[in-house]
Amino acid sequence: MTDRTSLPHGADAVPARSWWGWGDPGQALPDAECAELAALVPGAAGTALPVPSIASLELPPVRVSAPRTLAHLVSGAPAVRAGHTYGKAFRDVVRALRGDLAAAPDLVAFPLEERDVVDLLDWASGADVAVIPYGAGSSVVGGVEYRAGSHSGVLSMDLSGMGRVLEIDRVSRSARIQAGALGPGLEAQLRPHGLTLRHFPQSFAFSTLGGWLATRAGGHYATLHTHIDDLTAALRVVTPAGVSESLRLPGSGAGPSPDRLFLGSEGTLGIITEAWMRLQDRPVHKASASVVFDRFPAAVDAVRAIAQSGLHPANCRLLDPGEAALSGVAGGGGSVLVLGVESAHHPVDGRLAELVALARDHGGSPTSGTPAAGGSAVGDSAAEAWRSAFLRMPYIRDGLARMSVISETFETACTWDRFPELYEAVHRDVGAAVRAATGAEPIVNCRFTHVYPDGPAPYFTVVAPGRRGSEVAMWDAVKAAAMRTLGEHRATVTHHHAVGRDHRPGYDRQRPEPFALALRAAKQALDPAGILNPGVLFDPAG
Amino acid sequence: MTDRTSLPHGADAVPARSWWGWGDPGQALPDAECAELAALVPGAAGTALPVPSIASLELPPVRVSAPRTLAHLVSGAPAVRAGHTYGKAFRDVVRALRGDLAAAPDLVAFPLEERDVVDLLDWASGADVAVIPYGAGSSVVGGVEYRAGSHSGVLSMDLSGMGRVLEIDRVSRSARIQAGALGPGLEAQLRPHGLTLRHFPQSFAFSTLGGWLATRAGGHYATLHTHIDDLTAALRVVTPAGVSESLRLPGSGAGPSPDRLFLGSEGTLGIITEAWMRLQDRPVHKASASVVFDRFPAAVDAVRAIAQSGLHPANCRLLDPGEAALSGVAGGGGSVLVLGVESAHHPVDGRLAELVALARDHGGSPTSGTPAAGGSAVGDSAAEAWRSAFLRMPYIRDGLARMSVISETFETACTWDRFPELYEAVHRDVGAAVRAATGAEPIVNCRFTHVYPDGPAPYFTVVAPGRRGSEVAMWDAVKAAAMRTLGEHRATVTHHHAVGRDHRPGYDRQRPEPFALALRAAKQALDPAGILNPGVLFDPAG
Repeated sequence: MTDRTSLPHGADAVPARSWWGWGDPGQALPDAECAELAALVPGAAGTALPVPSIASLELPPVRVSAPRTLAHLVSGAPAVRAGHTYGKAFRDVVRALRGDLAAAPDLVAFPLEERDVVDLLDWASGADVAVIPYGAGSSVVGGVEYRAGSHSGVLSMDLSGMGRVLEIDRVSRSARIQAGALGPGLEAQLRPHGLTLRHFPQSFAFSTLGGWLATRAGGHYATLHTHIDDLTAALRVVTPAGVSESLRLPGSGAGPSPDRLFLGSEGTLGIITEAWMRLQDRPVHKASASVVFDRFPAAVDAVRAIAQSGLHPANCRLLDPGEAALSGVAGGGGSVLVLGVESAHHPVDGRLAELVALARDHGGSPTSGTPAAGGSAVGDSAAEAWRSAFLRMPYIRDGLARMSVISETFETACTWDRFPELYEAVHRDVGAAVRAATGAEPIVNCRFTHVYPDGPAPYFTVVAPGRRGSEVAMWDAVKAAAMRTLGEHRATVTHHHAVGRDHRPGYDRQRPEPFALALRAAKQALDPAGILNPGVLFDPAG
Repeated sequence: MTDRTSLPHGADAVPARSWWGWGDPGQALPDAECAELAALVPGAAGTALPVPSIASLELPPVRVSAPRTLAHLVSGAPAVRAGHTYGKAFRDVVRALRGDLAAAPDLVAFPLEERDVVDLLDWASGADVAVIPYGAGSSVVGGVEYRAGSHSGVLSMDLSGMGRVLEIDRVSRSARIQAGALGPGLEAQLRPHGLTLRHFPQSFAFSTLGGWLATRAGGHYATLHTHIDDLTAALRVVTPAGVSESLRLPGSGAGPSPDRLFLGSEGTLGIITEAWMRLQDRPVHKASASVVFDRFPAAVDAVRAIAQSGLHPANCRLLDPGEAALSGVAGGGGSVLVLGVESAHHPVDGRLAELVALARDHGGSPTSGTPAAGGSAVGDSAAEAWRSAFLRMPYIRDGLARMSVISETFETACTWDRFPELYEAVHRDVGAAVRAATGAEPIVNCRFTHVYPDGPAPYFTVVAPGRRGSEVAMWDAVKAAAMRTLGEHRATVTHHHAVGRDHRPGYDRQRPEPFALALRAAKQALDPAGILNPGVLFDPAG
């Protein structure tokens, strides 16, 4: 058993990550900033929850040990175990701040090659050790947290030591990439070839290719190729029943897609070790614009027209009045639509003009627009303000969590015909749930992260002061109400945050029962010992 | 038991179809034309195989009878059984012409509503009757032909009585459609709403929505939304274990996609009864052009540049020199690229010009081009000649089959890096197989039906004189060689013709073994009696 910091492999190149909160520990808000933020939320606590020291943490005893041949891959060090206990949801951050680490894995493994993954799974299958596949741990749905309870031990399998681009096929614009590659490292390896995956989730710096694939992550493109699924040409997956390698193909009609069974399987059917990904040439033509609408319904109609136009903007994010005000990009009750187009091949100004014209047809007023060809990303000031707020949001969320302010999001997708009622219902029902739980008047905002010809993917933000010590219970009550509301309006329990453990109630209601039967049977065939991420997608027993 | 022609339901509105050959019996070639065609193939037979009369057919005895409550839905009439024995591959047509109908189903059922499908499946599950889901029977891979052998009876389940558009959501541009809808009837029901599915396979008039979904059919669009998968929002599937209905969503990340398990399941997991489909506005701007290349490799490079440009042409079909000559669109060893763009919303002339410029950059010479805005489909003469030949091809194939001339196709997809070698290998190895089987010099031509950023979908045509009485064995030898060659070059056994029974050897080699385990387990869970399309995708025993 080795301490993580002394592991003799490339995982040491992985940037430091906060064990309790989001991302880079250096960007965590100082206490004073936490208090300043909380002062904007009426009813918030006045002092920040302290961040416990690693030395002060009480971790449960380690119950299992890896066989001698695998010991060099495994760590039981407290800092490592603490950092692999939770994902990064609000409820995870609060529990970590409280030092509540009863669910810590016994061990964390850092495989360096696929053979290690196979050997670790073989050992775990025989030893009744649950295995939690772990990319960079930014799950916000309880995807990396052991809760099932009855296994002899729990191993977190951290793929961060497997982050190389193994092969590039320039002519087919594709690369074979190890699943542990973090966003920045992956892009750095592609850049010399003039290529990019262009998958930029908010967690880009703190999530891995394997995590994106296992959870069907949403990325950069607001239209067309929204999920990582669309960029995937083939997968290599280690299952307890053997290694599954699909043929790399541009398209196929040979039976149900093997890749589509593993995309979204969230570590329950196997561990993705490599993928052939479809890449893009680096865009050289970019242009963006912002459009303000007085009326939100008119803005929604404009976005629908754009989504159905076939113009496929790269960015098409609509902020409702509350979200626009909170992000500081517009006040006065206006909604803001941020449009972006890009191409590696041809000028995009004409396309941006067509998009802006569609927005204008629906009553929008362009506030600015900076079409630019042949240069770096150029955005207008509203777009820039929003992007910078976007990347800062999780750190602000952590700062608010330290002040016991509930600051959390949930996201979905629904068809256009259902959206107006869903939007009203969320404000009404989730608002009521927040009032019931906290006694305070909530902020409930909405933006569209992705849009489709047949509907939007609305992303809701909730902010409300929590009672110290009851933050998790309060949010859980609100989240349960949100899931009920989504279900009642036939909206998906998640568009791109995955199911994990937190979305199980909504997922179980949404999933067709015969499909559940088929999936359970597939799980039983691939993971007969039931060790892979128990509690996710399936019944704990399954 | 009722004769098909007296069934009191909408299925009678289905146009007459040839029981032995392709499509509309009225378009079958007269004997003299068959002979004229065959005269162009050195070594072909001089007289046409006669088309047997229904009365002369020797059908096996009917072994089972439906319960009284279902009898009104079922026919055992010879013409009905004969017409449901085979699909429409060359080997099917030849066997039908010989009167070889030993594999005829005992009964053909014509359900009128989903309840009928459920009841028929319940009966079949209990009575060990194999059920072959049947759309319009245009499978070219043995998808609707019983071969497994050990069931007590065989029921062909013809969905053509369930062809209605049930619901239209104009705002989300979607419709709920019964699976038995044939292409023309489906479009006719959408047209009053200004909408279209725009899925136009070669079999458009003789195939159904359910068939397209079950086989992952390829359609109108040469790029981007190539398969019916991309147009599917939700499925309703009757399985022996219950009805599976997925939530209609524009996108979702909630676990593996339920729809993607049933898309491509080819009737082995359940019977698709309805689907929510994503529709398009009817295009009003269309333009097309043809470009000739002296060198085929340069044409391939041009198509690759177009496929990677993000311009998404609706049509982008490349004919190699042999195919261009056979289709009559170009001679002299030139390759022809047919480009088409369309939009319901904005002029497309600029996009066509960009596409033509890319082709010109790679040495192409535009022969003509008729950009047109605001009108009906306008193509240049080469495009028109090709389209008309395209729809006529299956009838010509039947005419040649009656002259014992092997005239068949196989199709695939591969990445760009592998295509040049694959193209050479097919000409060399499949050519050699034809020579070995027939002793004659074959025609082996190629066109691209669909193209992707990471590779093309090549479609090969083989023409050679067969020996009367040995046509099927000869083609089977050629097909086996083709499957071997595709497999050796890591090309898929099928891009859009499905697996059926004929592609099993290639599919079994291509499919990852752990995925096969998972799929078999899913099949066992949904179809425990093993009655659904036995022999397709799975081991006959599975």
